[in-house]
Amino acid sequence: MSRLRLKIAMSLDGFVAGPNQSVQNPLGIGSMRLHQWAFPLAVWRAMHGLEGGEVNESSRVVEESLANIGATIMGRNMFGGHPGGWNPAKPWNGWWGDNPPFHHPVFVLTHHAREPLALRGGTTFTFVTAGIEAALEQARRAAGGKDVSLAGGAKAAQQYLAAGLVDEMEINLVPALLGSGERLFERVGDGLHGFELMRTVAAPGVTHFKFAKA
Amino acid sequence: MSRLRLKIAMSLDGFVAGPNQSVQNPLGIGSMRLHQWAFPLAVWRAMHGLEGGEVNESSRVVEESLANIGATIMGRNMFGGHPGGWNPAKPWNGWWGDNPPFHHPVFVLTHHAREPLALRGGTTFTFVTAGIEAALEQARRAAGGKDVSLAGGAKAAQQYLAAGLVDEMEINLVPALLGSGERLFERVGDGLHGFELMRTVAAPGVTHFKFAKA
Repeated sequence: MSRLRLKIAMSLDGFVAGPNQSVQNPLGIGSMRLHQWAFPLAVWRAMHGLEGGEVNESSRVVEESLANIGATIMGRNMFGGHPGGWNPAKPWNGWWGDNPPFHHPVFVLTHHAREPLALRGGTTFTFVTAGIEAALEQARRAAGGKDVSLAGGAKAAQQYLAAGLVDEMEINLVPALLGSGERLFERVGDGLHGFELMRTVAAPGVTHFKFAKA
Repeated sequence: MSRLRLKIAMSLDGFVAGPNQSVQNPLGIGSMRLHQWAFPLAVWRAMHGLEGGEVNESSRVVEESLANIGATIMGRNMFGGHPGGWNPAKPWNGWWGDNPPFHHPVFVLTHHAREPLALRGGTTFTFVTAGIEAALEQARRAAGGKDVSLAGGAKAAQQYLAAGLVDEMEINLVPALLGSGERLFERVGDGLHGFELMRTVAAPGVTHFKFAKA
């Protein structure tokens, strides 16, 4: 059965985005530190069309997180805000460039209806205004039997967790202290019930914890 | 110079005590899981007068956390509540038994004035009603040049962090999800500013992160 797999980086003090999120800085202040462990990796570079890079304990975690994924769901901030405000005459393509690293259908949770956006490399962004369950249903259909990745951000993750719809969580814990921002584990109610730790991987600058529901 | 060193166990979702803390269950529901990594260790057993036990990657972290400590500060819940309510005619000795594992002066933050309590093995509990700075001053004096350990719980840790008085933090991160309870990193304001990661130790059932201010 197709599983919904959350993959997210979190600071030791529990934040997945820093304070003062904005269109100019959708991750918030300081939170680029949550992702720096990934940038030198060969597997990350290959996703972004770059050669070379390192192999370390994180490599197989990233490879595992990419395996058997047929579609991705993300919140609107993660797709990218609209600089200068929403303007249907000048729709833009988010933060991801002409050839986004997904190479499969991506479903964006938003309140703004918009035509799907097909880009190079097999990535299509579909904008879903009917809520998280509708987005999951569409993503599952698009995934054709494979799993669905939930890429964040905080609010999207919280909503799916609270609804009990997440089957697996890969928490990439970075020992940074952001001090404030958007917490992952807030407003999730009983949504964490039933998760069991599957494995822990210690790697340079990050510890990977995988949880799954039985 | 004598440093204030916080040592605390935290769940992956950020809690240092579970929900429904009470006199009967001062750690709250489920939070015994935060400490289970320590119980099999020879160094932990020796502190509690027990023989045998395991040696693993956590052993040197625990040894390090005990080294050069001359006094301990703790919150009142950690000393132990008063079953049936506070009764000066029947003062009790907290959760720690006749021979507590500290073997040095311990300062308990409380609103109830009380005579010091000297127990076997060199542990004396002194009850401080004048606030966190007074407790730190007394603990520093008692430590005679050694460091002071801040043993928790959540509220005591938050207060010292918020006041910028903590010099070092040993966070024993346990990949459990408590879902609710008392968070460590809440109401700390800018108190985390200046902490740098000193080292990470991956061990069975726990990851140890040490932060210090320069």
